[in-house]
Amino acid sequence: MRMELIGLKSRLIRPGDDVLEVLEGALEREGAALEDGDVLVVSECALATAMGRVVHLQDVKVGRRAMELGRRYCISPELMQLILEHSKMVLGGIEGYVLTLRDGFLCPNAGIDSSNAPDGCVVLPLDDPHAEARSLREGVGKRMGVRIGVVISDSRTHPLRLGCVGIAVGVSGFRGIVDARGQCDLFGKKLAITRKALADNIASAAQLLMGEGDEGVPFVIVRGTGIEIGDIEEGIETIAPQECLYFGSLYFGSISPSELELP
Amino acid sequence: MRMELIGLKSRLIRPGDDVLEVLEGALEREGAALEDGDVLVVSECALATAMGRVVHLQDVKVGRRAMELGRRYCISPELMQLILEHSKMVLGGIEGYVLTLRDGFLCPNAGIDSSNAPDGCVVLPLDDPHAEARSLREGVGKRMGVRIGVVISDSRTHPLRLGCVGIAVGVSGFRGIVDARGQCDLFGKKLAITRKALADNIASAAQLLMGEGDEGVPFVIVRGTGIEIGDIEEGIETIAPQECLYFGSLYFGSISPSELELP
Repeated sequence: MRMELIGLKSRLIRPGDDVLEVLEGALEREGAALEDGDVLVVSECALATAMGRVVHLQDVKVGRRAMELGRRYCISPELMQLILEHSKMVLGGIEGYVLTLRDGFLCPNAGIDSSNAPDGCVVLPLDDPHAEARSLREGVGKRMGVRIGVVISDSRTHPLRLGCVGIAVGVSGFRGIVDARGQCDLFGKKLAITRKALADNIASAAQLLMGEGDEGVPFVIVRGTGIEIGDIEEGIETIAPQECLYFGSLYFGSISPSELELP
Repeated sequence: MRMELIGLKSRLIRPGDDVLEVLEGALEREGAALEDGDVLVVSECALATAMGRVVHLQDVKVGRRAMELGRRYCISPELMQLILEHSKMVLGGIEGYVLTLRDGFLCPNAGIDSSNAPDGCVVLPLDDPHAEARSLREGVGKRMGVRIGVVISDSRTHPLRLGCVGIAVGVSGFRGIVDARGQCDLFGKKLAITRKALADNIASAAQLLMGEGDEGVPFVIVRGTGIEIGDIEEGIETIAPQECLYFGSLYFGSISPSELELP
């Protein structure tokens, strides 16, 4: 069982760029070609930049709530305003970051990127990353004649762990989550609740080649996963806050602080 | 830039097995060999099984607190007792799972595995996974004459996201977290806070080949990462709860529920 990852360096992506054209250039530079069954991972920040989702902070009109929350969390009022506009809810925060709810997922600062944006600018997240993944998949199909899956990736942290891992914000062409319930374990017992976050693991694998800074690798080909590619558009399922182990335990606080110490 | 992952199937691992011997058998079966610079990912559950960390639930003596919490979260009192013994703190829970603090990290049910354990048994997590990673690395060095890095991997979920991703519980031979602060972004701005969870991304990549059920792939070789391998034993750094965006926002509740709705 072997899997291969190929990182594709590209030229600097600018607003208005045709991503498929940039991809073709990157493939040529690496001497690589997409093949049937590949999964193409694309950085959300790069894609959003090409789509013109770059905002000059000085152009943002700031409201009262953004002033207040910006002050509380040491975030510029302009950025805080954009965070409020691009999230459903702000749950709290720490210095420099608020935790927001966006499309049912948690993300820091509504997924707005301050790095890899031109001076004084930020890059907004995609409005509908699954639709963009689909459009890329279909574009690659038409232009290069191959059936691939697409993952649009961003970075997140795990609670209490230092460092960013890759995560899938958009998926097209395969099931991003594999239901392993009913499959047997090594001893023949049926797995009761296991689902595998296939698209997230792919995004993490790709991040090993993408990096976070000036590496300039917005695309990674993941080959040999054995994933079945097709016209599958299932997105990524969320868990209701009450049913999420982290959220349910931390936010709804089912154990009171006075009970916390163990005997 | 190319990276390769090689999954190694093994025979069923039993308590008392010599893991290096099992690894040699798996390499032979795949027709593969470890090379200098490789990172070897090993499943914690497989390693813990070989080390005899398998407990019959019927042998567990249950205390009052375990009875009480087990009832509250629909967890068998025996398993709940083991969870209490192998975690520092139980923070809360949902049906079937409690969120525990263990070595500064959050994990469900103290990292105790009910799947891939013999009937009526569970597999306890390793007491010191970094030390086990080191011992494996040194063992491979002596027996096969290669300098590799080792990651011991387990599964976790992201808050509100369905599905398991790979995570590193033990690391040896390289820096599991890469500090990218000071590196420049695409536009020459210095990254202010970025760290990359290299070991977690490697564990996630490996999980694409490992699976969660009867796949029987306890080892994955990750080749071509460009990681510098050496006598590096830094473990994985935790974030203090107050400084963690998730924990700080959800648990310490810096925004009161009445403030939550946006204007």
